[in-house]
Amino acid sequence: VSARIDLNADMGEGFGRWRLTDDRGLLRIVTSANIACGFHAGDPRTMLTVAAEAAECGVAIGAHVGYRDLAGFGRRAMDVPTDELEADVLYQVAALAGCCSASGTKLRYVKQHGDLYNTTAHDARQAAAVVAGVRRHDASLPVLGLPGSALLSAATAAGLDAVAEGFPDRAYTAEGTLVPRSEPGAVLHDPEEIARRGVCMAVAGEVETRDGAVARVRARSLCVHGDEPGAVEAATQMRRALTSAGVELAPFA
Amino acid sequence: VSARIDLNADMGEGFGRWRLTDDRGLLRIVTSANIACGFHAGDPRTMLTVAAEAAECGVAIGAHVGYRDLAGFGRRAMDVPTDELEADVLYQVAALAGCCSASGTKLRYVKQHGDLYNTTAHDARQAAAVVAGVRRHDASLPVLGLPGSALLSAATAAGLDAVAEGFPDRAYTAEGTLVPRSEPGAVLHDPEEIARRGVCMAVAGEVETRDGAVARVRARSLCVHGDEPGAVEAATQMRRALTSAGVELAPFA
Amino acid sequence: VSARIDLNADMGEGFGRWRLTDDRGLLRIVTSANIACGFHAGDPRTMLTVAAEAAECGVAIGAHVGYRDLAGFGRRAMDVPTDELEADVLYQVAALAGCCSASGTKLRYVKQHGDLYNTTAHDARQAAAVVAGVRRHDASLPVLGLPGSALLSAATAAGLDAVAEGFPDRAYTAEGTLVPRSEPGAVLHDPEEIARRGVCMAVAGEVETRDGAVARVRARSLCVHGDEPGAVEAATQMRRALTSAGVELAPFA
Amino acid sequence: VSARIDLNADMGEGFGRWRLTDDRGLLRIVTSANIACGFHAGDPRTMLTVAAEAAECGVAIGAHVGYRDLAGFGRRAMDVPTDELEADVLYQVAALAGCCSASGTKLRYVKQHGDLYNTTAHDARQAAAVVAGVRRHDASLPVLGLPGSALLSAATAAGLDAVAEGFPDRAYTAEGTLVPRSEPGAVLHDPEEIARRGVCMAVAGEVETRDGAVARVRARSLCVHGDEPGAVEAATQMRRALTSAGVELAPFA
Repeated sequence: VSARIDLNADMGEGFGRWRLTDDRGLLRIVTSANIACGFHAGDPRTMLTVAAEAAECGVAIGAHVGYRDLAGFGRRAMDVPTDELEADVLYQVAALAGCCSASGTKLRYVKQHGDLYNTTAHDARQAAAVVAGVRRHDASLPVLGLPGSALLSAATAAGLDAVAEGFPDRAYTAEGTLVPRSEPGAVLHDPEEIARRGVCMAVAGEVETRDGAVARVRARSLCVHGDEPGAVEAATQMRRALTSAGVELAPFA
Repeated sequence: VSARIDLNADMGEGFGRWRLTDDRGLLRIVTSANIACGFHAGDPRTMLTVAAEAAECGVAIGAHVGYRDLAGFGRRAMDVPTDELEADVLYQVAALAGCCSASGTKLRYVKQHGDLYNTTAHDARQAAAVVAGVRRHDASLPVLGLPGSALLSAATAAGLDAVAEGFPDRAYTAEGTLVPRSEPGAVLHDPEEIARRGVCMAVAGEVETRDGAVARVRARSLCVHGDEPGAVEAATQMRRALTSAGVELAPFA
Repeated sequence: VSARIDLNADMGEGFGRWRLTDDRGLLRIVTSANIACGFHAGDPRTMLTVAAEAAECGVAIGAHVGYRDLAGFGRRAMDVPTDELEADVLYQVAALAGCCSASGTKLRYVKQHGDLYNTTAHDARQAAAVVAGVRRHDASLPVLGLPGSALLSAATAAGLDAVAEGFPDRAYTAEGTLVPRSEPGAVLHDPEEIARRGVCMAVAGEVETRDGAVARVRARSLCVHGDEPGAVEAATQMRRALTSAGVELAPFA
Repeated sequence: VSARIDLNADMGEGFGRWRLTDDRGLLRIVTSANIACGFHAGDPRTMLTVAAEAAECGVAIGAHVGYRDLAGFGRRAMDVPTDELEADVLYQVAALAGCCSASGTKLRYVKQHGDLYNTTAHDARQAAAVVAGVRRHDASLPVLGLPGSALLSAATAAGLDAVAEGFPDRAYTAEGTLVPRSEPGAVLHDPEEIARRGVCMAVAGEVETRDGAVARVRARSLCVHGDEPGAVEAATQMRRALTSAGVELAPFA
């Protein structure tokens, strides 16, 4: 039996004159593209361009929804009221879905960005608001997120497909959760090691924890980070390692 | 044979804490609601609320698209590049369409706001960009605009339904075009006179020009302004006058 | 010995086409104007206009600084990094100070708006960041805030004049702190009662708590709220009651 | 007699997470820094950081004011009302002046950015509004701009020091004006040629036109562009060429 996994990366994280990610480079490597929808990054022209390129490359498109915070790139905790967050998510998802169908493809899933991702990992109120926003757009859209998060629980409870992702470049605790970024060693930098961990997650469903033990990691997708120097090269190495290990790369949605 | 006309008004022109129009009041009177989509006004929560209310009232919903200019309320000329304007329009239309279907209804048409309306009346490049944005979302969406405008020409050329509207509270020249706002007497203020002109447009397809002559005005919809004190009262008077004259009020789309 | 107090109100809380407060009305009543600086509300033209009018009326001008959040009107908790918050405060204060000197007057003090006010009441990190931003502009500027707050402590520690204000329209606990808005009865609505409480604060330095006891309230300024219907009338009643009680109204700064 | 010239470059053109220019690199080369003030680019933290670094390097700081248009990077024509543009300029200048004094230095001049630069080259209304905004902040601030522009005329008429700049990397017409960017050959790319032209402007006050003739160019400052790959290297080459030619580099203000 051969293993199969999805590779997802954030894209379209520019705004107007500014660019962050090498979208064309990443689209040749990953199988799913999390495209920013205009609230933390992403202007309509960029969204449309990246959606069209992703469609051409056969890459599945996901709405990367975030807080309305361009200055903070959606990375600051914001206590957004429930009905407003629901509407903000619906708005972003619908706008990107429009860019997808204008590009002859369909929106396949939704993922949270930045601090919205972090907050909905544990905050049931915001998690429910996000899920409600997604459902009001399309109750058949999967939600990609952190295993064990409040978000995936809320998604499951609401009847959405809750898809778990793994982070090969992040350290894991013995409980199989992420070591917080504030702690030393939370983020790994060696592309070879990161690739090896990705293969382990995809093939065995396991990850070596920071204590040297082994934890289970259910993941239908692996997240590769695109906004750092060397990102495309690191993603390429991951893809090669997976293919060499006989893992099939395909969108989860 | 009885006449039939649509009444449209701008709505949802608030942003966050700010409000401009009495949306609930207007929705009991008009048959079409031009809802702001977030670029010149309109946040997602407001859009969703007004869309839901319009659906309840059986009022047709149109996307009121504008320049990205909250500080200027979309009323300043902006020389937006063609591909960017096309994407901006697509984004706004898709986002509001999402609010409509989340409210159990459908987006029925598109109208331009503020200076985008004025500029696309004569600027063929921007008119074509707007039409392209609408078509990329849905080639069956009608576009509401000024008779004789570059926008309606571009819409017709692109195979869209180009719907003309009349302005009972604006003075007309002998050629049947609007007297520019900068000229004295360009805007009428007497609700009774405005209502009388509306009936004349709806029943006879005519308007009295500022020179006392009569001009032809083809209009499938009449625009009532909602963002001034007394707006709801004036709109009510218009509706009453039309009904008394035997004119049927119904959405054009 | 006659008592003396300042009356402060929020102003210039519009943005572009939107207005919230009756600035001209309020300027005839209060002695200090908290002017929004463009982050939660307030565009430069509005700031300049209100500053000029305040100067004409002899009303002291304070910078009403807030989070960068137009959509949320600065009322949502935001976890802004320390150096960014310091710079955001400096920017807002300097910009309004420019509007003041362009109007022939000077900026007299700084006050926090919305959730920045609430958060800096207890969050020492953000309080210190705000104080640092104020000091980098002008170490002689007083800061107006909640008695017992982290903000006033930080201001005092940094050598700034920390000025306490009272809220005649808010219920107080036995400890002399504000009853949270989420609790019933937190906000009073009867203008007469509010005026009476204001006089009591100004003359006796006391307030009746929600349990019917009496608490000490040191306040060199009383805050009147300007963004609700009837605000100007309520403020007028307060001013009259204070004057009748022989309290002198004068800016604290 | 030795020649003397200023070298100016745009800086701080990031926003939040995004960066455009290598500010530290440029600050080691130029003598004047045009710092973005938050309307087309530039957040307060970036402004403060770049101002502090410029102060350390002994580089003169200018306010690089632009239209309120982050999405368009201030490069789109905008028909901003006169009083609003005046206030927008005052706001930006005052905010950056605050960052300067917080960094122990002073704001030395003002320059327009992007389409505000282009428009005020010929539009007397907008030019006057910009000059009025500068004067309301500080009537002793020089304005840096295009020789022969409406802006410099308005500045001179208002009693401001109007400082002309030259563009070594732009083609000139026989009349000594810039060849529009839309025409072929408008922008030069060879760093060596650009440096040679810069020396010619500084030493002889002349430039070779695109027709091979020679035109007079009065310039107290030369503009080097910082937002393109290789910008720092090109600027370094210019600086070296000027120094080799015995030209003294010093801020004009």
